[in-house]
Amino acid sequence: MPFTRITLHKGKSPDYLRAISESLDRALTETFDVPANDRFQAFNQLDHGEFVFDRHYLGGPRSDDFILFEIVGGKPRSTATKQAFYRRLVELLAQSPGVRPEDVMIIVSLTTREDWSFSNGVAWGVQTNGG
Amino acid sequence: MPFTRITLHKGKSPDYLRAISESLDRALTETFDVPANDRFQAFNQLDHGEFVFDRHYLGGPRSDDFILFEIVGGKPRSTATKQAFYRRLVELLAQSPGVRPEDVMIIVSLTTREDWSFSNGVAWGVQTNGG
Amino acid sequence: MPFTRITLHKGKSPDYLRAISESLDRALTETFDVPANDRFQAFNQLDHGEFVFDRHYLGGPRSDDFILFEIVGGKPRSTATKQAFYRRLVELLAQSPGVRPEDVMIIVSLTTREDWSFSNGVAWGVQTNGG
Repeated sequence: MPFTRITLHKGKSPDYLRAISESLDRALTETFDVPANDRFQAFNQLDHGEFVFDRHYLGGPRSDDFILFEIVGGKPRSTATKQAFYRRLVELLAQSPGVRPEDVMIIVSLTTREDWSFSNGVAWGVQTNGG
Repeated sequence: MPFTRITLHKGKSPDYLRAISESLDRALTETFDVPANDRFQAFNQLDHGEFVFDRHYLGGPRSDDFILFEIVGGKPRSTATKQAFYRRLVELLAQSPGVRPEDVMIIVSLTTREDWSFSNGVAWGVQTNGG
Repeated sequence: MPFTRITLHKGKSPDYLRAISESLDRALTETFDVPANDRFQAFNQLDHGEFVFDRHYLGGPRSDDFILFEIVGGKPRSTATKQAFYRRLVELLAQSPGVRPEDVMIIVSLTTREDWSFSNGVAWGVQTNGG
């Protein structure tokens, strides 16, 4: 149920993007209460000048490999769950494809189940009347 | 007042995009309490490898024609309103440009009126002091 | 702490984008309770047909230079703060790079501090246990 928009500079290989996708999916399923196969991601690959970020604000130093993950979820998560997810995501990204932890920024926003329709015009998690 | 970001694979014709735009606008005005002419949309057309989605999770089977609609609205909507909108959107998209209902995913998120400025730096729906 | 996605038509110069970035940053620090150096922005430059907007709805007339700012913040702001920010942003953009106030649309959405990790997998503003 989460959808993630992943923003980074252009120039990475398909394998690099695939590894980001895998590590994100694994971190979500391991720590963020996300079922297997619930994978929806869009990569925004930007030119220099299109992606603007401070190199040192509240962390870093950020390099040109900086990645922003914007994650929209469909149900609440506890503070502890969020913390565990952030830690696990940077850990897995460091392993594959090899992203420096300083280069990972994450923003979570949470909606409710009925704000989602996965397919066929059906609202998710809403009771329907029989008939 | 809604703004919609529409994510899909590259390769569709201008007419196809225009038909998506029309069907979305019509579904919003018919079912989602959106006034005529309140149309704000951005298409994100992605390469293969940039758009990652499970083919079967909670619906589908999704094809390469899969489309994600992220809709930000400026006021609350009831569960029934959301359900009616989801149903109507897939119905209209099936008619024009001919999108399979299995290929439509929708995420709604709602803010408040004062979170919007449409033009000229003026907050929407906020009382201003006379003078 | 805000992240801003800036959507506009393709075709502007690097200097034009840089001036938008500067004016946005200045408006945020002056009026929106944002610290210096807290700058995170992504530009989405779209082709004609990818960016759809009504020319007159609740403002305008909007031209091909129309810009949408989607700002995600990490803490609440008052109505007055939002109003001051909208006013200041259009004022600064009119000065540099010279954007017509009619061409500026802004959408704010607010999360909480723990929804943000700026770097290194650390949740922002969350007390950690010593040790």
